[in-house]
Amino acid sequence: MSNGKHKIVIVGGGFAGLNAARALRKADADITVIDRANHHLFQPLLYQVATGGLSPANISAPIRGLLSKNRNTRVVLGEVTGIDATNHTLETSSGELEYDTLVLAAGSTHSYFGNDAWAENASGLKTLDDATAIRRKILLAFEAAEQAKTEEERTGLLTFAIIGGGPTGVELAGAIGELSRQTLKNDFRNFDPSKARVLLIEAGNRILATYSESLSPKAEKALRKIGVEVMTGTMVTDVSEDGINVERRDSPDSPTQIPARTVLWAAGVQASPLGTMLVESLQQENASSVLELDRIGRVSVNPDFTMPGHPEIFVLGDLSSFSHQGDAPLRGTADVAAAEGKYAGKVISRRLKGKSSTKPFKFRDLGKLAVIGRSSAVADLKFVRFGGYLAWQFWLFIHVLKLVGYQNRTTVLVQWASSYFTRNRSARLITGKLDWGELTSDRAGEQQRTSERDAAQH
Amino acid sequence: MSNGKHKIVIVGGGFAGLNAARALRKADADITVIDRANHHLFQPLLYQVATGGLSPANISAPIRGLLSKNRNTRVVLGEVTGIDATNHTLETSSGELEYDTLVLAAGSTHSYFGNDAWAENASGLKTLDDATAIRRKILLAFEAAEQAKTEEERTGLLTFAIIGGGPTGVELAGAIGELSRQTLKNDFRNFDPSKARVLLIEAGNRILATYSESLSPKAEKALRKIGVEVMTGTMVTDVSEDGINVERRDSPDSPTQIPARTVLWAAGVQASPLGTMLVESLQQENASSVLELDRIGRVSVNPDFTMPGHPEIFVLGDLSSFSHQGDAPLRGTADVAAAEGKYAGKVISRRLKGKSSTKPFKFRDLGKLAVIGRSSAVADLKFVRFGGYLAWQFWLFIHVLKLVGYQNRTTVLVQWASSYFTRNRSARLITGKLDWGELTSDRAGEQQRTSERDAAQH
Repeated sequence: MSNGKHKIVIVGGGFAGLNAARALRKADADITVIDRANHHLFQPLLYQVATGGLSPANISAPIRGLLSKNRNTRVVLGEVTGIDATNHTLETSSGELEYDTLVLAAGSTHSYFGNDAWAENASGLKTLDDATAIRRKILLAFEAAEQAKTEEERTGLLTFAIIGGGPTGVELAGAIGELSRQTLKNDFRNFDPSKARVLLIEAGNRILATYSESLSPKAEKALRKIGVEVMTGTMVTDVSEDGINVERRDSPDSPTQIPARTVLWAAGVQASPLGTMLVESLQQENASSVLELDRIGRVSVNPDFTMPGHPEIFVLGDLSSFSHQGDAPLRGTADVAAAEGKYAGKVISRRLKGKSSTKPFKFRDLGKLAVIGRSSAVADLKFVRFGGYLAWQFWLFIHVLKLVGYQNRTTVLVQWASSYFTRNRSARLITGKLDWGELTSDRAGEQQRTSERDAAQH
Repeated sequence: MSNGKHKIVIVGGGFAGLNAARALRKADADITVIDRANHHLFQPLLYQVATGGLSPANISAPIRGLLSKNRNTRVVLGEVTGIDATNHTLETSSGELEYDTLVLAAGSTHSYFGNDAWAENASGLKTLDDATAIRRKILLAFEAAEQAKTEEERTGLLTFAIIGGGPTGVELAGAIGELSRQTLKNDFRNFDPSKARVLLIEAGNRILATYSESLSPKAEKALRKIGVEVMTGTMVTDVSEDGINVERRDSPDSPTQIPARTVLWAAGVQASPLGTMLVESLQQENASSVLELDRIGRVSVNPDFTMPGHPEIFVLGDLSSFSHQGDAPLRGTADVAAAEGKYAGKVISRRLKGKSSTKPFKFRDLGKLAVIGRSSAVADLKFVRFGGYLAWQFWLFIHVLKLVGYQNRTTVLVQWASSYFTRNRSARLITGKLDWGELTSDRAGEQQRTSERDAAQH
């Protein structure tokens, strides 16, 4: 496509990238969207896939399909492996890409705070493959418990430790609590699934720390009702194949070992390594430029999301650190990313038309929502905060409203209604080749790990 | 569960095994259902998953959930690795299982007619993992075509060869035809997806050979309308990574090489190896017993599905060869298997109550249906046969009717209606770790094969 048109490359088909591309639909430019997956993902509902409540296709949509009406846009399935800001090129798995304008919106991944070895045993939740791997892990733990030969073994199999008391941790813990207390109630003969321990472990002194303080006890209460043990002020000091070591903040030096076959990681995120790659390329060009990545690897940007000295480079979404004058940086959620994408698309579009610059970006925060099981949620909105059934209804409404372009809203609504009334999580599938050793007590640790790693990749 | 009760072991949670277990719901017995998957599968719609029309959970349901009301039944996730008919035990991945009555309903798998090396390049469709691997293969071929550097390469990538003109082959070919002509119509920039070649290759002189003769031309016409090239009288003589070799029956010695990146196998099935295992165990016990497996490995059974001399062993479904007096053996379809399972369950149930034997089994054939794309099908019913839109409507009605216990019918109906009106196949997900070499022309063959094999396992 070397027709002399302005070349825009958008890296990432998430909320930021997709919204930027859509805002550029009528731009007189050649746009390329490159992503490592063929689908855009509605991450706020990923925990539902991980716990068998929804299918992958319910919360995702092919990027091509979402952009098929952008006749100026081509979609490339591929990975960016290098950035050369001086020569305006990207190195990708599909060869070199030239750009006149670059939009980096590559998102974030899990962070194990330097304990990368934990990754093997504490699964994180960022992609559809993560979600089906976690679903498999949870369901296989129940299957193995049915076949366990000792009570000790069964206890470890029926302990689910979720590390991190943010929205993802709360939602995962709630869904697993429900799975064990309601969905699987009558499914096993050798044990009572409601005896499963679901632990939500948070180092800080309250869960949902980014929400208003009054909501944390509401959420805790709702979680306890469906069987979740909330452990605040508790630090995880080690994660191994057999379980976790924890230490209470108020009594250090008294570590406790908790056997747990299933450990899930919802404690931290880290921006995509493309941030580092960009900063390194810019510093190579100009060693005196001061470019900083924050603690979690996010790139600091100008008020219009461009890089200092590089108006042709935009960094958006979870990969960028943006603050309204003096405020804390905006959080890494879908609504923020979508707004930033729209804004950047508009800035680029106006530039191409030779118009003056756009009004500064202002994020209109409508609030935060987290769901706790089948019929409870907490809502932290601009002027009001509330919990319980009403919040859940509101949450449902908002999410269905946002599911534009995924499978149609009706399908998801029907499925939710059905699983609400039947307490059934119908997508309880174990997929991927099974290693029978995983199910029996004489399983070889190595085999199991290999197999779980494989599953996580598929 | 050694409470002295009669022990029934059912191997396989497919249509035969599940229906047998359900018929035994009130039996005074200890029932164990063992299956290698945690889910029962509605195989007639598997091709829809393979082509992105439905999600795995839409056509499957956890076996535990389906049998949770059978309080006399436990479900074991595991594999049978040995049969000892003399000592009434099975060797399984979860240890030894004793039985007083054994129900073998382990189904069938693909058969490559002795060309097992073809398996690597010609994917078969029997499990959910097969279906998502095929979906991945088809969608990746289009993605790679968008990135192809030469027209020659693109031609191979856009050729889809389906081997076998039975119902599965017809349905797969129709769905891929539609995918390329309708769903993906606006999705690519470097080629026109409707230029994709979809070949349906059948060695016999007509497709749908088991259907009434008048329906074959109807089906061919409907397939041609959505872009499928039907090649009857054509034998496949080789399958390799690059494509297939074919030979027309009427002009042998003039082989043609067809480059095709995607080759799908719908040509033959073969009964589970458990049939051979059973027969070998019985012959070890009594060398003079004459036990035969038919050409595709099915076990010949008595009129009540028991083994000669072993009234405690039942063989059902695709694994057994059953004929009404003098007729051809019943076909290996879901309706036949379900009827057999129900019958065997009833026989066992009556025996346990000490009642006399049951009436002989009689399969009431309601007819056969095959679908050809979005709005056409052929129906071969007992007293009437018809094709086209009406048959499609009928097919839809029947299948939704049969989707009891899977995700609720409404969900599937909504999804079908939506994909019918929007021509969208919303489950077009590529899942599993990507090997970027697969997408570019410098891909290493070995890497690709490994990666596809992995995908097939997950």
